[in-house]
Amino acid sequence: MSSGSLKICVPQLNFTIGDFEGNTSKIADAIYTAKQQNVDLVVFSEMTVCGYLPDDLLDYPHFIERCEQSLEVVAQSCQGIAALVGGVMRNPGKGRLLQNVMCFMQNGKIEHVIAKTLLPTYDVFAEERYFESAKSQDPFDFKGVKIGVAICEDLWDLYNDFEYTISPGKELKEKGAELIINPSASPFNIGKNSHRNRVFVGQVSRFNLPVLYVNQVGIHTEVLFDGSSRAVNPNGEVAMQLPEFKEATVIVEFENGKFKDSSTVLTVGDDSVDLMYRALVFGVKDYFQKMGFKQAILGSSGGMDSALVQTICSDALGPENVTAVLMPSKYSSDGSVSDAEQLSKNLGNPYHILPITEVHQAYESTLSHVFEGTSMGIAEENIQARSRAVILMAMSNKFGKILVNTSNKSELAVGYSTLYGDLCGSISVIGDVYKTQVYAMAEYLNKETERIPTSILTKEPSAELRPDQKDSDSLPIYPILDGILRLYIEERKGKDEIILEGYDASTVSRIIHLVNANEYKRYQAPPIIRVSSKAFGKGRIMPLVAKYS
Amino acid sequence: MSSGSLKICVPQLNFTIGDFEGNTSKIADAIYTAKQQNVDLVVFSEMTVCGYLPDDLLDYPHFIERCEQSLEVVAQSCQGIAALVGGVMRNPGKGRLLQNVMCFMQNGKIEHVIAKTLLPTYDVFAEERYFESAKSQDPFDFKGVKIGVAICEDLWDLYNDFEYTISPGKELKEKGAELIINPSASPFNIGKNSHRNRVFVGQVSRFNLPVLYVNQVGIHTEVLFDGSSRAVNPNGEVAMQLPEFKEATVIVEFENGKFKDSSTVLTVGDDSVDLMYRALVFGVKDYFQKMGFKQAILGSSGGMDSALVQTICSDALGPENVTAVLMPSKYSSDGSVSDAEQLSKNLGNPYHILPITEVHQAYESTLSHVFEGTSMGIAEENIQARSRAVILMAMSNKFGKILVNTSNKSELAVGYSTLYGDLCGSISVIGDVYKTQVYAMAEYLNKETERIPTSILTKEPSAELRPDQKDSDSLPIYPILDGILRLYIEERKGKDEIILEGYDASTVSRIIHLVNANEYKRYQAPPIIRVSSKAFGKGRIMPLVAKYS
Repeated sequence: MSSGSLKICVPQLNFTIGDFEGNTSKIADAIYTAKQQNVDLVVFSEMTVCGYLPDDLLDYPHFIERCEQSLEVVAQSCQGIAALVGGVMRNPGKGRLLQNVMCFMQNGKIEHVIAKTLLPTYDVFAEERYFESAKSQDPFDFKGVKIGVAICEDLWDLYNDFEYTISPGKELKEKGAELIINPSASPFNIGKNSHRNRVFVGQVSRFNLPVLYVNQVGIHTEVLFDGSSRAVNPNGEVAMQLPEFKEATVIVEFENGKFKDSSTVLTVGDDSVDLMYRALVFGVKDYFQKMGFKQAILGSSGGMDSALVQTICSDALGPENVTAVLMPSKYSSDGSVSDAEQLSKNLGNPYHILPITEVHQAYESTLSHVFEGTSMGIAEENIQARSRAVILMAMSNKFGKILVNTSNKSELAVGYSTLYGDLCGSISVIGDVYKTQVYAMAEYLNKETERIPTSILTKEPSAELRPDQKDSDSLPIYPILDGILRLYIEERKGKDEIILEGYDASTVSRIIHLVNANEYKRYQAPPIIRVSSKAFGKGRIMPLVAKYS
Repeated sequence: MSSGSLKICVPQLNFTIGDFEGNTSKIADAIYTAKQQNVDLVVFSEMTVCGYLPDDLLDYPHFIERCEQSLEVVAQSCQGIAALVGGVMRNPGKGRLLQNVMCFMQNGKIEHVIAKTLLPTYDVFAEERYFESAKSQDPFDFKGVKIGVAICEDLWDLYNDFEYTISPGKELKEKGAELIINPSASPFNIGKNSHRNRVFVGQVSRFNLPVLYVNQVGIHTEVLFDGSSRAVNPNGEVAMQLPEFKEATVIVEFENGKFKDSSTVLTVGDDSVDLMYRALVFGVKDYFQKMGFKQAILGSSGGMDSALVQTICSDALGPENVTAVLMPSKYSSDGSVSDAEQLSKNLGNPYHILPITEVHQAYESTLSHVFEGTSMGIAEENIQARSRAVILMAMSNKFGKILVNTSNKSELAVGYSTLYGDLCGSISVIGDVYKTQVYAMAEYLNKETERIPTSILTKEPSAELRPDQKDSDSLPIYPILDGILRLYIEERKGKDEIILEGYDASTVSRIIHLVNANEYKRYQAPPIIRVSSKAFGKGRIMPLVAKYS
């Protein structure tokens, strides 16, 4: 057991991809403040200087030079204090051109470079696209403590769908590490905290070593990072845990081979509606901030999905920054308009009522000759959805407001949405939230006061694109639909396996067919804030030309 | 040198992803026909039974089972003949769950399974996402010839942006291989054939061994495979080469350590306009076939881009299957309409003239209250482009025709296009073709007869969204724009390096800024037929929230 003691500062920060000036000054500030508090070591999250993950910006040699320069600059500020700072460096050996590294800095320079071994390349991760693996891992001494650095996935060798052939943690243990530091960029999803607990509790007991996990926070395009950094002792006890979805900094004391209990210990429920709601509010807020926008606009139909998105955006951006546009057609019920109005009043959002009747008639007239003799169908329904999108985008362009998309995961899955119509938007807020979860979240929000009018919660779902249309005309009820979708999408079960779970065979076939047949719509969908273990978008890549179901 | 002799059949075929029945029966037919011709060995392209690449369908255990079953079924048909057939199998060892394999089949069963070692994970490739590398490679004996199988990338260890740490070809040579077979799924791009020649000539002389390269043909979502299979002797001589962009089967004789000269030898220019044109015609044709559609619809503006796309689609689908829609606004010049009409007449395409005036007025009227007091700008311009998209999509939905996108790479790069407007479409035909290449292709097409009216070629490019608008108002002339874009996109040069090539500094800064600032539009763009070494889309993944230029 280690005889050394360390005062370690953990800054859980929100970095912006490629913002080398901003990130570097944030890092230098944290180091400066820590030094005032007699900290020995400051530990940052993975790829600190460039943000995680820069995607193909990593293919630009100039980007890598900036990265290496930033690491040098930060190192110079490490006088009388040490820091572990992440970034990307050129690979000094053969193989892929780069390595994902943490630099141990002290005495004004980089003293050790630790490269990552296990390179996640699944779901939203694509690290093998850029990086060469480290060939070995070695702990290093700092003030009497032998520190092993296992970068993010390097501590997850046993905890994926497959078991890696190498265990960097085991190697560090065998080489005498007394403390494992795990700088990470670990995305949030519902259920992830339990998963992480299994990993940390499993690994601390496997190696009989304490683990310090430092995660970044923020949204990076569609991928949400929650922070939730923590210090775990060999007995599985959590000595420190930082909050989700916000920047926070804490100092932990490491002594006699373990972390002292810190006052910063949170116990957080997982899987909770509350957690999902806070994730989405934070995601919207941070996405707008990083895109440089303050205001949102959305179509408010009087239905459940847009009502929930409007509420989330209000909480994220402030009610005055969310403009609702009500665009009734001849098929809209009176209730839809009054419900939508009531919602905007409840939330305090500015709203406009702009009926699409005139536009709709103009399309009918323009197309009357070519459509002559055909009967009304999908084409006419879609004109309505697309007319609304044109109005929303015109207002978005005119007033510099981001259009937010209001599609939910259930309808995105089965293609129950109009491409270039209600599929428009710069960001999809609830595109990773099933309809049954949409209802649960709305009920949760209404617990104390009726924010979303009850009539919206209780009416039967309808796209209102033709007379008396109801979602249930063409889809099974949502608990059944979502049950099938979850097995197919999150759990990757095949048709036969899903039927074995008790679902009707022809319904299962039809739903799987719809999911596959609508890949072409999702190909052009906006980025979707990821809150599940398998969201549509970057983490689920499907061919459009496949013949498979 | 080998004393054995072999009659080898090379079927260069077009497989459909996930169509196990169709692919398996195509494979069995090829084996049956070869047997009638006393062939010893039939060599198929990579991942034969499932098509390359199924993307995340590979995450479905059921898909893998179907794959393994298909390989078994094909093996049973190998009686009195041998075959190398590709597919995906479960990894019998630790690590990622799958392997990318070629199965050597004879006597009704799979006798050897060869797994791939080098797993391309760059540009459009993501094989590390699914597969575990083979740990070693071993040649096997067949009729007195020691055959080494190097699957696709396994022969490219020295020929990428980086050098792999392992050389499967070298290992096979050292273990006594006398012939290297290279079953591949190698995407087409302009310049690729010269690149392949460098690889094959380099490797045959490095190992002093003949190489048989067998490639698939067809479009798989955005990625185009050209075939161009070939047999190369140790002296670098090409003994056989199959054509691009079509299925073809040939028998080659292997004797005394080399391939006999075959009558099937093509010499094909690379980099040619002709090659690009044929690539796009084939891409459109195959995309429509695989999507199950016969007919295309597009907006015909009287400009160069839509004229070229209309010509390509006519050649791909037949003139009667391409419907042009002319949608003049109040800013359209008379010339635009008459040019577009003349084009449709030249090509023999049905066309409709549907002015957007009425629709445009309806939007103006609907938005008059909210837009009061603002001056005309981007919002109003975009309404026109989006009104056209709504009309086109309505006709697409009504008549079951695929909307083809007409944006070129230059405008996609700088965002000179309207999201949900002219960016709509199920497939982008020239989204990987720079504007200067668009002109070159049009001139080439007009060589013998004036297919594209000369007035379209000679008029100044304009989006015609406001009075007297010209592309050159806001962009440098196309040769300069395309020069900068090529250095930034294909060559990944930074700003300083591009300026060093002689371009004006402020122009370079502005163009790079525009490329980066418009990632959000390309995120929602249609799949783009890939004909360059770096196309927008799946092969170029960029963060939307980055602060970098």
